[in-house]
Amino acid sequence: MRILGIDCGTERTGYGIIESDGKRHAAIAFGVFKTNPREPMADRLCVIARGLREIIAQYQPGEAVIEEVFVAKNAQSSLKLAQVRGVAMVMAREAPMDVFEYSPREIKMAVVGFGNAEKNQVQLMVRALLGLEKNPPEDAADALAAAICRATMRRV
Amino acid sequence: MRILGIDCGTERTGYGIIESDGKRHAAIAFGVFKTNPREPMADRLCVIARGLREIIAQYQPGEAVIEEVFVAKNAQSSLKLAQVRGVAMVMAREAPMDVFEYSPREIKMAVVGFGNAEKNQVQLMVRALLGLEKNPPEDAADALAAAICRATMRRV
Repeated sequence: MRILGIDCGTERTGYGIIESDGKRHAAIAFGVFKTNPREPMADRLCVIARGLREIIAQYQPGEAVIEEVFVAKNAQSSLKLAQVRGVAMVMAREAPMDVFEYSPREIKMAVVGFGNAEKNQVQLMVRALLGLEKNPPEDAADALAAAICRATMRRV
Repeated sequence: MRILGIDCGTERTGYGIIESDGKRHAAIAFGVFKTNPREPMADRLCVIARGLREIIAQYQPGEAVIEEVFVAKNAQSSLKLAQVRGVAMVMAREAPMDVFEYSPREIKMAVVGFGNAEKNQVQLMVRALLGLEKNPPEDAADALAAAICRATMRRV
């Protein structure tokens, strides 16, 4: 099964596609869509929409995973993040793919083994689980972690 | 100029298209996209995306207006609303249309004359300004109000 993880962000949206049988996972592609903070939000969201459409068309994943959003300390940032999330959900669902949501805690639990893991621990574990030569960029690592989480869950 | 106003909501997203020279406004079309709360959010967002794409293709508005979102008492609802908003922005921008954002206060000021107007006052004024025979549905009225606000602003 090929799974797409998406780590939403207004400035940087990470994506990661893995191939997995639930036990062993291989990275197919990963990266980050960057948007320009000086551009209007509508344009930035379109950059993310286009990017996601392109990688979905190219790699044809069967399922998508997106991290749940909670209201953070900075509520206004959470709202911006939620906008990206809505766009990501539509791009994935229109593909059409099944869309799954997990909390940051569930994702860290699945990948690192405890729910309060730090960003760099996630990077290291993602690298180890996928046998990558170096750490993937932070946002891509989070996206790959979401995909690995889903791969693990589907096996249960 | 033909302007599309969008009033985002997870259960009900209102839309209203007006033709305006900045002084006189005429309603071209308005309505509400309803989504089923029992369906997954990704599917509900797709209903809204599809609905917006269809009315944009049919009526070819030149500009879109979307109300700004603020963190409300219920923060989790604000996040859901923001997801819809992100989708609406992409649908409008990809059309391609220019996308404008106004606060609820600005919209009420432009339509009713004061920023704390009640929902039914907005409905009544929208009906009067557009010469409608009866009150438009609440969410459609808010969308039409956003479009009228933009029509008024562009004239300045």
